[in-house]
Amino acid sequence: MEFKDIVMKRYAAKKFDGKAVPQKKIDELLELIRFAPSSFNLQTWKVKIVTDKVTKEKLKAAAWNQEQITTCSHLLVFCANTDVLGNIDHLEKTMLGNGATHEQIKGYVNMMRGFEEGMSAERKLTWAQKQCYIALGNAMNGATSLGLDSCPMEGFSPEQFAQILDLPKGLVPTVICPIGYAADSPMPKLRFKKEELFF
Amino acid sequence: MEFKDIVMKRYAAKKFDGKAVPQKKIDELLELIRFAPSSFNLQTWKVKIVTDKVTKEKLKAAAWNQEQITTCSHLLVFCANTDVLGNIDHLEKTMLGNGATHEQIKGYVNMMRGFEEGMSAERKLTWAQKQCYIALGNAMNGATSLGLDSCPMEGFSPEQFAQILDLPKGLVPTVICPIGYAADSPMPKLRFKKEELFF
Repeated sequence: MEFKDIVMKRYAAKKFDGKAVPQKKIDELLELIRFAPSSFNLQTWKVKIVTDKVTKEKLKAAAWNQEQITTCSHLLVFCANTDVLGNIDHLEKTMLGNGATHEQIKGYVNMMRGFEEGMSAERKLTWAQKQCYIALGNAMNGATSLGLDSCPMEGFSPEQFAQILDLPKGLVPTVICPIGYAADSPMPKLRFKKEELFF
Repeated sequence: MEFKDIVMKRYAAKKFDGKAVPQKKIDELLELIRFAPSSFNLQTWKVKIVTDKVTKEKLKAAAWNQEQITTCSHLLVFCANTDVLGNIDHLEKTMLGNGATHEQIKGYVNMMRGFEEGMSAERKLTWAQKQCYIALGNAMNGATSLGLDSCPMEGFSPEQFAQILDLPKGLVPTVICPIGYAADSPMPKLRFKKEELFF
């Protein structure tokens, strides 16, 4: 499917039909998310995948009882990974393990470390969260490209989600995206005019 | 081009060849950005498009002298539109102009107004900025789908950019994306392992 068609076809499904998406398709979708770009390639996010019915019911109650959560197949919970320093160390190791030399990546690693040092805890969180939205974009477009439906959702309690999912400290639920087969129909797309958004 | 191929082909071009992208292609790209999703469909962003050489030189100086800025064809400056209330009014008018009745959209509009009232100025900014990253994602993937190259960049001074571009109050430069034809070659893609990002 051409990207233009993906963009025009994608919509926020308000209800799913409950059918399970085959694991092979989910694996393809996760690869599209995994290769999303991020600042410094630091990939400051992790995605908790929820398929369990009981857990979904609990999460639904922490998300204004929106039924996308219980009717979808896989619920993706995009979490900002606020351990930026840990990610720098991890990226450094990954690059070295991939054949780079200390000498080759020294400047890059030092730049990241300097950047990290200058950030408050709050700024680390919002910065990591922004990167989540790029990954989310690939999830939504990726789902459409695979014949699946999705719905970006911010209306939930991050604190309650963290508790229900027993998330490690440092992972902050940021935006969620149920994946499945839609049981509703898209409304016609409405956007501001071109001249209202570009100048 | 299949979305999978777009995701794997896209990379952050470090240098462009200076050639101008035809307006028709830019128009197609802007449509892909315009139809990006956003929270409540509020489209809390505007994009300043810079092609002028003198302005690009000034911006380059406010962006660590990164040469993508002067070698690209079109520089997209994604600005968060922090006038959330203005956007709600505007979306309401747009929906009414599109044939919806006050009765039909009353609940939706009231929900948005209640949400806006609960946000601090700082939260409005970070929330609007997050939406910019979804639009940025469509810009990057969209560029690749159109045979163009791009580079997401956060390393610039938002204050200086706002001043150089004489931006209206309320528009905050958030992330920039030069568009053009790359004059470098992509490095092999490196990402954390699947099991390190999904759980």
